[in-house]
Amino acid sequence: MGRWEPDARGRLVLAAGELFLIRGFDATTVAEIAGRAGVSERTFFRHFADKREVLFEGGGELRDLLVTALDESPVGTPPIVAVATALEVVGEFFEPRREFARWRQQLIAAHPELHERELIKLAGLAVAIADGLRRRGVSDIAATLAAEAGIAVFRVAFDRWTSGDRELVALLREAFDELRTVAAGG
Amino acid sequence: MGRWEPDARGRLVLAAGELFLIRGFDATTVAEIAGRAGVSERTFFRHFADKREVLFEGGGELRDLLVTALDESPVGTPPIVAVATALEVVGEFFEPRREFARWRQQLIAAHPELHERELIKLAGLAVAIADGLRRRGVSDIAATLAAEAGIAVFRVAFDRWTSGDRELVALLREAFDELRTVAAGG
Repeated sequence: MGRWEPDARGRLVLAAGELFLIRGFDATTVAEIAGRAGVSERTFFRHFADKREVLFEGGGELRDLLVTALDESPVGTPPIVAVATALEVVGEFFEPRREFARWRQQLIAAHPELHERELIKLAGLAVAIADGLRRRGVSDIAATLAAEAGIAVFRVAFDRWTSGDRELVALLREAFDELRTVAAGG
Repeated sequence: MGRWEPDARGRLVLAAGELFLIRGFDATTVAEIAGRAGVSERTFFRHFADKREVLFEGGGELRDLLVTALDESPVGTPPIVAVATALEVVGEFFEPRREFARWRQQLIAAHPELHERELIKLAGLAVAIADGLRRRGVSDIAATLAAEAGIAVFRVAFDRWTSGDRELVALLREAFDELRTVAAGG
């Protein structure tokens, strides 16, 4: 990011969000997003590979938040507990952003290509969690299973959160309880 | 598929597999695959969207196998047990195909775009399993969690199977045991 346009990225995200809402995702072009943000198309492409990527802005931040929270769990914390704790931190991050999340979920549900991108991003988060657990000395298999199960729990809770009015952290706890029951053969 | 070329699909899969092995995935073109199979490019595109899709041949068959096995579980079978049983049927299907699976895994690991496609296919299998469980009266949340956890278990077991010499069904059972331990906070 160049020093001469410190806010270009933020302006692009805002412009894209407004245009996706007003004109629809499909009808919005990169040229329009760039124009609304007051930057060139070239600047857009310095920040994002395509217009879809704008919707996944913040994915790196989310991963850092998760991994940091994971690393901060006391030594000896059972892997699933460390994952649950880290996901609660993410839940608190999302809590004030429900309207945006709701809109984004609808957009993703309506566009298979966005849904695919979302799946790939979530798979990347699972890999980051599993790596974090392995660094804590968790076995390869347990790390992968705790991470993948954690992401499944997160998706279930997140879907319920965007379609209702309960708090995400409470829904995460419920889903983790349900996972335990299901895995035990309940 | 036209009557006049009853075997075109099978010949395309074989030709693609041979060319991917001999020349590499990237260097192989659709024209070459079609030529080796003795059909036109147009025929190729009647069967597959692109050369990547050839590697995911059989995905529908796999889903049907899974869903049928799931449907055949006795009423009242706990969801995770129904999923484990269905995945064992899939495991038996794969058992004689380890060499092919090993080669395919290497190809997928070496090509991020194939890895993404694989993730999307696996996510589709999880959705099919969850739908099957819901049809059996399992709650929405339990169905999703059992399905996603089942696919995570399958991936862990499948990776170990392709990189070693133990049987897939045995590895699946071990991974399900590990899931139970992890989910219980072990």
